[in-house]
Amino acid sequence: MVRVGIINVTGYAGAELARLLYLHPEAQVVSVTGRSAAGKSLSQVFPHLWPIDLTVAEELDDVDFAFSALPHAASAEAVAPLVRQGLPVVDISADFRLADAAEYQRWYGGEHPAPDLLAQSVYGLPELHRAAVREARLVANPGCYPTGALLALAPAARAGVIQPDVVIDAKSGVSGAGRSLGLVYHYAEANESASAYALGGHRHLPEILQELARLWAGGSLTPRVTFQPHLVPMTRGILTTCYASLADGALPAGEGAKAAVRELYEDAYRGEPFVRVVPEPPQTKHTWGNNLCLVYPTVDMRAGRLVVVSCIDNLVKGAAGQAIQNMNLMLGFPEAAGLDQPAVYP
Amino acid sequence: MVRVGIINVTGYAGAELARLLYLHPEAQVVSVTGRSAAGKSLSQVFPHLWPIDLTVAEELDDVDFAFSALPHAASAEAVAPLVRQGLPVVDISADFRLADAAEYQRWYGGEHPAPDLLAQSVYGLPELHRAAVREARLVANPGCYPTGALLALAPAARAGVIQPDVVIDAKSGVSGAGRSLGLVYHYAEANESASAYALGGHRHLPEILQELARLWAGGSLTPRVTFQPHLVPMTRGILTTCYASLADGALPAGEGAKAAVRELYEDAYRGEPFVRVVPEPPQTKHTWGNNLCLVYPTVDMRAGRLVVVSCIDNLVKGAAGQAIQNMNLMLGFPEAAGLDQPAVYP
Amino acid sequence: MVRVGIINVTGYAGAELARLLYLHPEAQVVSVTGRSAAGKSLSQVFPHLWPIDLTVAEELDDVDFAFSALPHAASAEAVAPLVRQGLPVVDISADFRLADAAEYQRWYGGEHPAPDLLAQSVYGLPELHRAAVREARLVANPGCYPTGALLALAPAARAGVIQPDVVIDAKSGVSGAGRSLGLVYHYAEANESASAYALGGHRHLPEILQELARLWAGGSLTPRVTFQPHLVPMTRGILTTCYASLADGALPAGEGAKAAVRELYEDAYRGEPFVRVVPEPPQTKHTWGNNLCLVYPTVDMRAGRLVVVSCIDNLVKGAAGQAIQNMNLMLGFPEAAGLDQPAVYP
Amino acid sequence: MVRVGIINVTGYAGAELARLLYLHPEAQVVSVTGRSAAGKSLSQVFPHLWPIDLTVAEELDDVDFAFSALPHAASAEAVAPLVRQGLPVVDISADFRLADAAEYQRWYGGEHPAPDLLAQSVYGLPELHRAAVREARLVANPGCYPTGALLALAPAARAGVIQPDVVIDAKSGVSGAGRSLGLVYHYAEANESASAYALGGHRHLPEILQELARLWAGGSLTPRVTFQPHLVPMTRGILTTCYASLADGALPAGEGAKAAVRELYEDAYRGEPFVRVVPEPPQTKHTWGNNLCLVYPTVDMRAGRLVVVSCIDNLVKGAAGQAIQNMNLMLGFPEAAGLDQPAVYP
Repeated sequence: MVRVGIINVTGYAGAELARLLYLHPEAQVVSVTGRSAAGKSLSQVFPHLWPIDLTVAEELDDVDFAFSALPHAASAEAVAPLVRQGLPVVDISADFRLADAAEYQRWYGGEHPAPDLLAQSVYGLPELHRAAVREARLVANPGCYPTGALLALAPAARAGVIQPDVVIDAKSGVSGAGRSLGLVYHYAEANESASAYALGGHRHLPEILQELARLWAGGSLTPRVTFQPHLVPMTRGILTTCYASLADGALPAGEGAKAAVRELYEDAYRGEPFVRVVPEPPQTKHTWGNNLCLVYPTVDMRAGRLVVVSCIDNLVKGAAGQAIQNMNLMLGFPEAAGLDQPAVYP
Repeated sequence: MVRVGIINVTGYAGAELARLLYLHPEAQVVSVTGRSAAGKSLSQVFPHLWPIDLTVAEELDDVDFAFSALPHAASAEAVAPLVRQGLPVVDISADFRLADAAEYQRWYGGEHPAPDLLAQSVYGLPELHRAAVREARLVANPGCYPTGALLALAPAARAGVIQPDVVIDAKSGVSGAGRSLGLVYHYAEANESASAYALGGHRHLPEILQELARLWAGGSLTPRVTFQPHLVPMTRGILTTCYASLADGALPAGEGAKAAVRELYEDAYRGEPFVRVVPEPPQTKHTWGNNLCLVYPTVDMRAGRLVVVSCIDNLVKGAAGQAIQNMNLMLGFPEAAGLDQPAVYP
Repeated sequence: MVRVGIINVTGYAGAELARLLYLHPEAQVVSVTGRSAAGKSLSQVFPHLWPIDLTVAEELDDVDFAFSALPHAASAEAVAPLVRQGLPVVDISADFRLADAAEYQRWYGGEHPAPDLLAQSVYGLPELHRAAVREARLVANPGCYPTGALLALAPAARAGVIQPDVVIDAKSGVSGAGRSLGLVYHYAEANESASAYALGGHRHLPEILQELARLWAGGSLTPRVTFQPHLVPMTRGILTTCYASLADGALPAGEGAKAAVRELYEDAYRGEPFVRVVPEPPQTKHTWGNNLCLVYPTVDMRAGRLVVVSCIDNLVKGAAGQAIQNMNLMLGFPEAAGLDQPAVYP
Repeated sequence: MVRVGIINVTGYAGAELARLLYLHPEAQVVSVTGRSAAGKSLSQVFPHLWPIDLTVAEELDDVDFAFSALPHAASAEAVAPLVRQGLPVVDISADFRLADAAEYQRWYGGEHPAPDLLAQSVYGLPELHRAAVREARLVANPGCYPTGALLALAPAARAGVIQPDVVIDAKSGVSGAGRSLGLVYHYAEANESASAYALGGHRHLPEILQELARLWAGGSLTPRVTFQPHLVPMTRGILTTCYASLADGALPAGEGAKAAVRELYEDAYRGEPFVRVVPEPPQTKHTWGNNLCLVYPTVDMRAGRLVVVSCIDNLVKGAAGQAIQNMNLMLGFPEAAGLDQPAVYP
């Protein structure tokens, strides 16, 4: 068994790593850290993790593989020495997602704590960068919103059937905001309410732009993207609806366009263990607790727009599950090891 | 007191009419109908309406004013004879919203039951057609989605600051689907889940198109609109996010654009009793149970897009409250009579 | 108009007072206080209260009547000088509910800040103490749980049909815990979860004991009461289920017992503006936003137990609505002034 | 691999069996039936089950083991011939839970379809009847409510520390009502609402009585039990709070009583794979999706009552998970095979 450590197990992504790895046939969590909870047993912090008999420590023990679920900046600082020692790491924070340190500084404030490592980090969306993840020692796990948006848009962007002019309207459950307290996440205020937030620009936008640009014309083009996140009253799940004008002549006229788009997506995702092109518009609940991304592409024939809906569980495919998928690739395990399970429904 | 009747009180819009009219200083519900519940007391069907001592009847009694909350087609059939007798009516169904009977047939199937009345019906969005509502005998109450979308877009469309190329992404609570049973509305399936629906085109689209076209260039122009509704797990509320490319040169460059848009909206809605241009992005819950529409306009500066968020309670401003607002205008009451109350929060 | 002040408007009870009083025909809120929010407009703190144009102040202005929604101890300190000056006050905190200062100290810690006022304070459950409330200058508004429990049990206790041996199992929505932050009220943790709390004894127990003892044998008897509160994932509402063994021979044998109990309750609450003995088991949602208490009494014939279910909105009949009901009595207004409205449903 | 069939896979218990068995190391679902859905693929009916490539059939194929998730009466009819042929079966319906066919008829109406099999059926609560389950060919899976109630009460009842006079107040999520449609389960009506139901007596009561009687004095005593179920707005989970007067002198006086009760429960459940005596009052969410029952026993010292709280997931330990636990025992697999996983939290 590979000995795995989780840095900052006390947030939702960290706890979800522990939950999912409990079922992993080839990896075992042997060390977990967390500052405020140091010294407590894991099951004191998270009663649902009681079968895992570990104490939250301040420092990571000797491990073969590490996940960091620290906030940005703190994560790079914790992860950099490990990577330099040769430990393979998946970083769930945003620190190694953006190739450009200046862009990082623009969105996250402060200088990048380890800009020298950016060149070797790989953006860990396996469906786009599988080969590179396999070779990587440092994988930057994508944000939850970018995961849903990029899997919805990638086939169309790569095939050039849409114009680089996109609206991404995403609806997230509340666990996406983490375990920190805030009035907006207080049950009585969040329940039975929906709202838009980050109207001035969300930190997940530059990731989306970076990856879409890579898909379109190899980075020579800057797509025009409006990404707007929303909070909806549910615990888990992101529903992403993407809109883009069709490129002229890229699809057959009339109803054939729908079938052509569908075929394009099915071809793009054939063989993917965690992306399904579904026959009916999906609900987020169909991914509750598992690592799937469900994608439903169609065409608004009246307006000449591609419309793609995707669903993920923000804590699994949007965080911990995808991190394990990346670990599996990095360590040569079957890609779905420990992750092959149906969603919990209803 | 004006004697008011509600045709088909047994759905959510009908029940909400009864609830709101209970507080009306100049109108009193004296007759309610409903086929399946005929003979029952209103409080058997809806215990929260127990202070209203009425029996659900098959036929409307003699009244001074009628609301119809019947489904489309059935509503026109019930309403037409009343209108012809000179009774003022607000029809909450879709039957008299579309000026073009052919368009009606395209979206609703079947011939229009009373095409001769279309010319005299007024689309009852008071913020767009107040003067006409005041003179009308037959008002077609707008759909819930069009109410949220049109109030979000009207000032920008009328002022010409956006191109007629719009994406409307709406998120509705489950009561919008009415009181009929369906697996998709079963608590265990709808809760903790979000989904898109009607991807082939929703019946509220032609209303939106009709009204936007009137705003732009007096109807000589067909806006390109993608309207996509979503179901989110809450009982009441519609959050609508609208996206449209800015018209060239219509706004100042740079951050001044945001202030200019904001001023445009504040000017447009100054004095409106039920539209507020809010200083922070609103939550649907801020309108729970009352007739407000909250609007938050801004600009995505990177992408050059207007983004407008609006919130309404789908059963109030999206149905029964707006119907009463229309009644108030038709009968010469103060527009806010019976409707001036804070939302229920939290 | 009576000029009303709300001390500590920034919690849910305070905000609900402001919301409800907006509709009151004879009282107007003219002054609101709150420490952390002092200097802000009320609508910054609570956007749903925007029609009320007031600034949150540190100190109360000159008013004719005051509500205190401060926490215990702080409330008595703020209220005592007002009462001594002759201002009529309803205190929503627990400070003046218990007649015995020693009992107060046992449950709330610390000495009572104004024990001299206990003798003149009246426990403001109008259905039990209407005449005294009418004469009072200081009314202690009951706790939310005691309101639901006492209205469920009072007729049976007073009539002697049950033994003084009672289990009260109450299920509360999350707003009952107030607006303070806590992990247990974080949406992601509270949603889709139910739990019991305060298993060592909840502070509302001594109120319940005090009032039940007054009902039984004029205080000469100490009922044996287990009161167990639970948190369920909803925003508003308390469902209380009470169980008590029947007193020997107090009811007819057989199914007649149910009818006898029902008649007892109907007689007890005949004419009460805010208590309804309902024909079917009620749901909390039937009281959403209004001042009703719905009571459903029955008998478990197999076990020989009275079972009574009651529903209230914890913020209305359980707090702000009942406070206004008390004000109405104290000031000689119609008891239902400003409170006569249907619940918001669904 | 043992070849397993699920009769009536189209309800929630059937679907949950399929989900859980997907992870079972020694059993594989090879045949599923369901009348209305016959001919459809399983993933059409339940998209979350798409990795299971099966078509819903009208009749069961040849299998080594069968689960029936049919409604009562239909289940006995389907199961009886299988049992007579020697097939081991777990019946999730109520048909074989009550040893007394007359009692069955009293509560379920109609004669028992296979009274001859009652003598050989075992009540499948492994914590009470493990040895018998191991030998059984026909196991009656307990109801969801009895599972939560009996695990909460069994140690105390068996040890004689309580009087046979019990109140069981249970709060269930909506999935407990199954997948059938009903207004009371419509999202808009069920959400944000709590209610009591079945006040005339719930069908799970006779099971509870039968098993409690077996625990107390070997059946010679009829405990006096009030069992009251409630519906709370969540999808999964049952929270059960049990109240019983302490037997005289059975526990040490004073605070020692709590420790004694705790020790009693810890001893009773030591080594149980799926019952945990927890140190803090549990939330239902700590069992979301897994087979645990969490039990928290304490004493209300003022009233001299044992209070025990238990949590289960009604679809897992309350139905499908317990059924698999029973299968494991019947087939000699490790008891936790396929079931050893943390809950999904948050």
